[in-house]
Amino acid sequence: MRTVSTQVCIIGAGPSGLLLGQLLHDIGIETVILERVSLDHVLSRVRAGVIEQGAKRMLEAAGAGARMNAQGLVHDGFAITRESEHHRIDLNGLTGGKYVTVYGQTEITRDLVDRRADTGGLTHYEVDAVEPHDFDSDHPYVTCRIGGEETRFDCQFIAGCDGFHGASRRSVPEKAIRSFEKVYPFGWLGILADVPPVSHELIYASHSRGFALCSMRSRTRSRYYIQCNAGDSIDAWSDDRFWTELRRRLPADIAERVTTGPSFEKSIAPLRSFVAEPMRFGRLFLVGDAAHIVPPTGAKGLNLAVSDVHYLFEGLRSHFLERDDHVLDAYSERALARVWKAVRFSWWMTTMLHRFPDQAPFEARIVETELAYTLGSEAAKTALAENYVGLPY
Amino acid sequence: MRTVSTQVCIIGAGPSGLLLGQLLHDIGIETVILERVSLDHVLSRVRAGVIEQGAKRMLEAAGAGARMNAQGLVHDGFAITRESEHHRIDLNGLTGGKYVTVYGQTEITRDLVDRRADTGGLTHYEVDAVEPHDFDSDHPYVTCRIGGEETRFDCQFIAGCDGFHGASRRSVPEKAIRSFEKVYPFGWLGILADVPPVSHELIYASHSRGFALCSMRSRTRSRYYIQCNAGDSIDAWSDDRFWTELRRRLPADIAERVTTGPSFEKSIAPLRSFVAEPMRFGRLFLVGDAAHIVPPTGAKGLNLAVSDVHYLFEGLRSHFLERDDHVLDAYSERALARVWKAVRFSWWMTTMLHRFPDQAPFEARIVETELAYTLGSEAAKTALAENYVGLPY
Repeated sequence: MRTVSTQVCIIGAGPSGLLLGQLLHDIGIETVILERVSLDHVLSRVRAGVIEQGAKRMLEAAGAGARMNAQGLVHDGFAITRESEHHRIDLNGLTGGKYVTVYGQTEITRDLVDRRADTGGLTHYEVDAVEPHDFDSDHPYVTCRIGGEETRFDCQFIAGCDGFHGASRRSVPEKAIRSFEKVYPFGWLGILADVPPVSHELIYASHSRGFALCSMRSRTRSRYYIQCNAGDSIDAWSDDRFWTELRRRLPADIAERVTTGPSFEKSIAPLRSFVAEPMRFGRLFLVGDAAHIVPPTGAKGLNLAVSDVHYLFEGLRSHFLERDDHVLDAYSERALARVWKAVRFSWWMTTMLHRFPDQAPFEARIVETELAYTLGSEAAKTALAENYVGLPY
Repeated sequence: MRTVSTQVCIIGAGPSGLLLGQLLHDIGIETVILERVSLDHVLSRVRAGVIEQGAKRMLEAAGAGARMNAQGLVHDGFAITRESEHHRIDLNGLTGGKYVTVYGQTEITRDLVDRRADTGGLTHYEVDAVEPHDFDSDHPYVTCRIGGEETRFDCQFIAGCDGFHGASRRSVPEKAIRSFEKVYPFGWLGILADVPPVSHELIYASHSRGFALCSMRSRTRSRYYIQCNAGDSIDAWSDDRFWTELRRRLPADIAERVTTGPSFEKSIAPLRSFVAEPMRFGRLFLVGDAAHIVPPTGAKGLNLAVSDVHYLFEGLRSHFLERDDHVLDAYSERALARVWKAVRFSWWMTTMLHRFPDQAPFEARIVETELAYTLGSEAAKTALAENYVGLPY
């Protein structure tokens, strides 16, 4: 077995692993990133892309913000429609000037990959059988197979950035983790199409037929979603059926402006809320989706991963540069406090905007009232907006 | 059978029936109020007494505000405690100067009874077998037994102000009503004691042992509540046990300041949310508890009854004085829009502050986070405050 030493071994080359690796690299801390799949596969993953300012600053700090700042779309607000009504959430006005940036997660990943290559950071792709070991000791290590060769990475810390299904959380004894979960009784059917978006701002549509979301990747590429049944098959949803159903859930004046076209990506995603506690196990730290999942409503997944990276990077910097472990020791608590607030917000947005099959009449009416109250109250809209643009780190 | 004619027959001599009767009387519309129980019985009912400014204005408009304004306690804020933490909700600061008035519902009823007597309005007490008839026609009437004599009141409108268990809602065919209900899996054990309240402001206590509320009727009379099991018997709760449990649920510095003493009233109330739709059936109008019930958290019950009276009075005034039925025709819709918002708020306060037996871990954590977020966000506290002082009519 080949043995390699590094300071921080990062499992997973998605945005959180790459971002953490870059921030550490830039202050002279050596990292290795191990990724199960190929670079092409990583870059083929379609994910959301509504970036909070805090996350944007983190990407800039890692030297990966240039293309985002050039090509990303600044959004000062978004729309919520309710049946035929149209309401604008003025993020900028409600939060004292804040905004979000629409820029695809795939693009962020590419920028971070490029930046890592430019600065000489090491990433292994198509690594098999990754497994963290002895993280409850002072000498943790990660074993894996790289190009068929058994390899061992001795390190001081392991960062588990390998997502919900990754090896990191699974390597922790079950009884050491408390997990919280909610599975929503519907999915999101999403398409990508090279047609101009119906609006320059996102539209969240609450409708008696179900939720819909009009989003975009750029001025010429649209991302649309509709709430579908949990058991629906993608084969049952032709492009025609999708566009027809989408339009039905939008106010007529918006529906008639939707430009349709062939989809080049179509998929159904389940909706789930999940949190694992704690987020630290000795010298193993869970980051992003490895520790928590949110439904896509409100686009918090990537932003939460970035705030985890923020807290972990602060802790590791303090450990390596100042020989002070207070910040690192607070990682789980600090990260989880913000995680739960975003989990609450995503749950609340999801609950308020979707139709739940078999919901009790009282609860259904409460949800309708929640939306009516929120849209009619400056205070409630401000609360919505401050969560949407991102609570402070 | 004796037959009497009047313009509006009001069933129920609680605050809503008396207030509606007074407002109508003062503009020259004749009313009769029919009450099932005795005046003493009505005045022995113990109810909450946190009055919104809108409700206060209504009582003043009915000429029944003098004693409330002299003796009621103006509250500019209240406290929420969470385990040992203490947070103040600055109602005044958060709402641009609004406040609530603490003044017992029993006192309001007494003031309205006195005012009705002074102005010559007619109220029959201890009336048996009250029953509304033919309210889907232009000639509704109410039958009852007064002092053993069968009596019929011919009228133009019937106002059902006779509470959740009253005859009014029951007289409507079941299939004409859609009802919404939630029964909470706990009760409130409340006591009245002639001891000075622990604080001059209300304290809502969220605690792992359950909710508690420190309230008052006056500077020398305290009203305390603790969340108890739904099946608890009052006999199991001695005063000693009550005071001990109350103190456990308060931060230590507050607990030690609680002045204890013998209770002179002690009871367990179930908690329920209920709404019946619509609130109008031809010439029968449901008002207050006859149409909706809220849990006591947030003290919306009486305030909602008063806003119903506001909408109904506006409609009847417009009908009688201006021969215009537009306002009356909008009664159900206008009243219900505000009802649902208060039902939502009461449900939210109840859910956020109580412990629910058998709550799923995810939901329990969401509720904890809701409270943590609310207490840490000016926007969320503003939303809480604007509901607490009362949404506009």
